[in-house]
Amino acid sequence: MDSDVKKISIAVIKRLPRYHRYLGELLQRDVERISSQELSRIMGLTASQIRQDLSNFEEFGQQGYGYRVRDLFEQINKILGLNCTYNCVIIGAGNLGQALANNEDFKKRGFVLKGMFDINPKIVGLKIAGVDVMDIDNLKEFIFTESIDIGVICTPKEAAPDIAKMLCSCKIKGIWNFAPVDLKAPEGVVVENVHLTDSLFTLSYRIQEQKLRERFKKGTAIKNKR
Amino acid sequence: MDSDVKKISIAVIKRLPRYHRYLGELLQRDVERISSQELSRIMGLTASQIRQDLSNFEEFGQQGYGYRVRDLFEQINKILGLNCTYNCVIIGAGNLGQALANNEDFKKRGFVLKGMFDINPKIVGLKIAGVDVMDIDNLKEFIFTESIDIGVICTPKEAAPDIAKMLCSCKIKGIWNFAPVDLKAPEGVVVENVHLTDSLFTLSYRIQEQKLRERFKKGTAIKNKR
Repeated sequence: MDSDVKKISIAVIKRLPRYHRYLGELLQRDVERISSQELSRIMGLTASQIRQDLSNFEEFGQQGYGYRVRDLFEQINKILGLNCTYNCVIIGAGNLGQALANNEDFKKRGFVLKGMFDINPKIVGLKIAGVDVMDIDNLKEFIFTESIDIGVICTPKEAAPDIAKMLCSCKIKGIWNFAPVDLKAPEGVVVENVHLTDSLFTLSYRIQEQKLRERFKKGTAIKNKR
Repeated sequence: MDSDVKKISIAVIKRLPRYHRYLGELLQRDVERISSQELSRIMGLTASQIRQDLSNFEEFGQQGYGYRVRDLFEQINKILGLNCTYNCVIIGAGNLGQALANNEDFKKRGFVLKGMFDINPKIVGLKIAGVDVMDIDNLKEFIFTESIDIGVICTPKEAAPDIAKMLCSCKIKGIWNFAPVDLKAPEGVVVENVHLTDSLFTLSYRIQEQKLRERFKKGTAIKNKR
């Protein structure tokens, strides 16, 4: 097994897409080198956290000279598997499915949309983002003939487990699930469940916390006035 | 400041929406009590992690009797600020904005959509999910007159910073941002940036890792045969 990949902890892996995003923006602005202090400022992480995370790729940093942006970006790009291309299908061609189909960022990073599937006869037959929306009955065959790697589930909650089962039976490699249910897959198939409510609930928590903080401040201000 | 809220670490807070989801499902199935072992099985966390997380609400667990599902759910619901309602607007009424507008889960949890805004004259004037799509020029006034708490940004990346500035100048409480850029807000405004690519890149990382694992296994199998 590739020891370069194995050494990195899952906590660091979870932060890599963020480094990838910021380093990509620096590259677009032709920045060649960046210090951990400067990266810390723009990313909102501590400089020591950044030094610790990037010590996994220490060959790209040099004491006093900062990190070489392009090399670091390319290394992270490779570790995230973004130097490969992935053939994708979207199941569920409603608003969310269409939003994902039209997202240019995914295409740019090697996620190639090959087809979309739905059960709604009003949608089946349409062309969205340059690909055909087909009837769900054709999904299995399409996965085999087009060597599909990733199935993106944008169906209602109720339909998602059966779709996932079908995808797994076709030996798909990964499932990106937007239905509000935690899908489980057999060994060999990777699932990422996206729960949009999670970030919404974190937002409402933080709004309440902010309210308390303001009330506390006002309380202190009134006390100080007295 | 409410000491009940302050005691809980941000790492635990980040896991609370997940507990909220699973406990909500148990409630729907009329489950009254659950052990940390059983919760561990369905949530895919270790029982010790669950006991540690829920020790923040220990009054609801009793050695040997498990956790009282409804009490625990309601406590977490309150901490996440989900016992309140939030007036929301969506800015950008394209596919993603429409998908969020039609999401029943948000409404059920107290996030009330009051209006949508766009610059596209083909969309302005439509009714989506029961609310009007208005011209962006009316946004500021609408926020004041309708006491809007949360602005959901579903615009292209380029427009997002200006929209965020406008929202902040109206003293909005929170911004839920889907544009692929990390928005920053002044003190007093809470921002949650959602980066869909982050979970997609984690998926591609895990697919590559899985490939390596299979190659390693095959290698071992061939060795064993020899």
